[in-house]
Amino acid sequence: MKKPRVELVCVGSELLAGKVNTHAASLGIMLADIGLSIAREHTIPDDRNVMRQTFAEALRRSDVVISAGGLGPTFDDFTRDVWSEVTRRPMKEDTALAADIREKFRSRGLDMPPANLRQALVLKGANPITNKNGTAPGQFLTMGRKTLVLLPGPARELFPMVESVVLPGLRRRFQNRHSRLKSFLIAGVPESRVDQMIRPLVDRFQIIDGCDIIHGILASQSLITVKFRVEGTRRSTVDAVTRRVAGAFRALLKDIAVGEDEEKMENIVGALLSRRKETVALAESCTGGLVAKMLTDRAGSSVYFLEGAVTYSDAAKTRRLDVPSALIKRRGAVSEEVARAMAEGVRRSGRATYGVAITGLAGPGGGTKAKPVGLVFVACADPDHTYSKQFTLNGDRSWIRQRSAVMALDLLRQSIIRRAR
Amino acid sequence: MKKPRVELVCVGSELLAGKVNTHAASLGIMLADIGLSIAREHTIPDDRNVMRQTFAEALRRSDVVISAGGLGPTFDDFTRDVWSEVTRRPMKEDTALAADIREKFRSRGLDMPPANLRQALVLKGANPITNKNGTAPGQFLTMGRKTLVLLPGPARELFPMVESVVLPGLRRRFQNRHSRLKSFLIAGVPESRVDQMIRPLVDRFQIIDGCDIIHGILASQSLITVKFRVEGTRRSTVDAVTRRVAGAFRALLKDIAVGEDEEKMENIVGALLSRRKETVALAESCTGGLVAKMLTDRAGSSVYFLEGAVTYSDAAKTRRLDVPSALIKRRGAVSEEVARAMAEGVRRSGRATYGVAITGLAGPGGGTKAKPVGLVFVACADPDHTYSKQFTLNGDRSWIRQRSAVMALDLLRQSIIRRAR
Repeated sequence: MKKPRVELVCVGSELLAGKVNTHAASLGIMLADIGLSIAREHTIPDDRNVMRQTFAEALRRSDVVISAGGLGPTFDDFTRDVWSEVTRRPMKEDTALAADIREKFRSRGLDMPPANLRQALVLKGANPITNKNGTAPGQFLTMGRKTLVLLPGPARELFPMVESVVLPGLRRRFQNRHSRLKSFLIAGVPESRVDQMIRPLVDRFQIIDGCDIIHGILASQSLITVKFRVEGTRRSTVDAVTRRVAGAFRALLKDIAVGEDEEKMENIVGALLSRRKETVALAESCTGGLVAKMLTDRAGSSVYFLEGAVTYSDAAKTRRLDVPSALIKRRGAVSEEVARAMAEGVRRSGRATYGVAITGLAGPGGGTKAKPVGLVFVACADPDHTYSKQFTLNGDRSWIRQRSAVMALDLLRQSIIRRAR
Repeated sequence: MKKPRVELVCVGSELLAGKVNTHAASLGIMLADIGLSIAREHTIPDDRNVMRQTFAEALRRSDVVISAGGLGPTFDDFTRDVWSEVTRRPMKEDTALAADIREKFRSRGLDMPPANLRQALVLKGANPITNKNGTAPGQFLTMGRKTLVLLPGPARELFPMVESVVLPGLRRRFQNRHSRLKSFLIAGVPESRVDQMIRPLVDRFQIIDGCDIIHGILASQSLITVKFRVEGTRRSTVDAVTRRVAGAFRALLKDIAVGEDEEKMENIVGALLSRRKETVALAESCTGGLVAKMLTDRAGSSVYFLEGAVTYSDAAKTRRLDVPSALIKRRGAVSEEVARAMAEGVRRSGRATYGVAITGLAGPGGGTKAKPVGLVFVACADPDHTYSKQFTLNGDRSWIRQRSAVMALDLLRQSIIRRAR
């Protein structure tokens, strides 16, 4: 069977005027698990004409159309109505859904605005999808060879519905597709170098044993991800081809890869710490809590993350981390010496295996000729050594903070590996 | 003149497989400043056929087409070539660009892989756009009534080019369009209520003095943004209509709006603290540094943000914040009493006007019947009072953390206002 074509249409004027749309990225990952990928994504405003045209084109072109957004009760929600026009299917109030919506308001002690009942309207032939985190139900409709899925816009409503109903439904329809994704995370090498390195393998592995291999390279902050996806119709062949190609990439990238199947440095560091039963305490200045936030994004991080100190003021550096105020006066708060003293201080008082510190100038103000915006020092103290590094980063405040955080985590990663030897 | 139609095409397989695309959101905001908006956005894979079809359709339908991505030197970058086919314009190596690319590598002491020179190819008639943060230059091409803009994919390369060349270029072409955006941020009221409240104003203000008024309502975390845009051909009329409509919304929302023209609670709080020359210190448990990160995202936050303590372990709560260990034992680390003690402790030792604390269960593990995942306590101590609140939030770890952070900042906001009275 030819690979089914999936198209995603995101509806919402706010997505074209400031609100970031994460659906394509997340749905792409989820669909890949069942051997599907998104062929095109469209983001369109709450405009009936554009919606009508985009919906009709997508439905004509593709096997599966997923529309996200515009199912709410407010004045600018008319996805349901437009799909009814485009598919020429009337809508009917679903009694169970209507009761459910009434109950959701009742249980919170709220009056239900009557417009909410529009959310119980279902296209003829569609199966409603229960929404555990909101009032707008979804719809799953099979029309001959075409599948149409209507989902609400908010991510926390949409994704549970995709997991519980949409993916199983699509898997049943397209059960002879299999796919495996493999990725390698690389730190400290420019993208064009990595590209040159992998080019021979990319050219060599395109089709093997009837499986397609799709390659990609992606730079994000100071990290590069090299990835490939193997797609085919037999699970065992897909698995065997994946192992073979992965082996070749692993051998090629062994000196520069920091992890496999993981795009986040904080998770690589977290897994290392967990495995070695070691702990970390943080002292952040210019990153202002970002590194702590990244480490604690991961569930279970309380095992290895003990505490963090966001010491923005000089007084806090002295009071919380025992950095001598004379040292700050002599070298400045943004200096290698202060970074090292912060790392050692937080390690000692935090009673952790490692103390990690970041101090720098994230800007936009505060730079001088000797210490320009973008100058950052990171340090990592273990029970026996203190390591430190200096960077000069180009970019805006948010970029400098993000990149400093990744650099600090990479220094921690290197320190853990050195200590483990 | 009819409003020009702008279409955005983002190229990159990674954008359909895990990488979040923020271009539509950010470009939408920037274009609004010159009275333009994005009519449709497409995200497509690095696939020549899909690119060819999407580029051709967009160019046929719209007055301005912006394509982002696929200008790099790697094997999967062929946006330039496809645009050359679609517009039937040959490409030529730009001597200055080629020299510039060579120089960028030389100055970093790197060899230039030859593929990089492809980046110096320019469509016939196009003006190259210098890229300060990368090697891939952009292109700006005027073809009769159509405008075509080619930009690299990475945000930090694209946006400076939009600011310095694309916006001024488009402004010159469409100088008789004017636009004003106005927004109100609302906390603590459900979206459907806000929608009911504003409906009469939305219906009443649609067209005034020849200006279009486009309304929107947007829920994000626990915050709701009500916004409208006024568009027209005379600046003074657009301004006058904006003032009139804003006045009506301001009067309607006076009891529930927490800010105007601002979508982030951390910036509202930051502006309040700055104005009153007050300071804050934070004690975070389940949010793990997120609140500190949010407050310090804002440039100049060092004036009012003194320090933060991410006290993940019980020992750190006692050692850093003087929370009595007997209290933690008696009430549990996730309790109103501990939240209050953390807020008071960090305020005292941090020597700040306000101490803010968050403790809760972000999950996914660790919940009990008495203390389920999603239970969160926030507290704010000022020199005279300590305020606290309890929430039970539904959602995953990331949602609970995000929402707790906003709740803590809202409690701080309320405390500042109470104290100011």
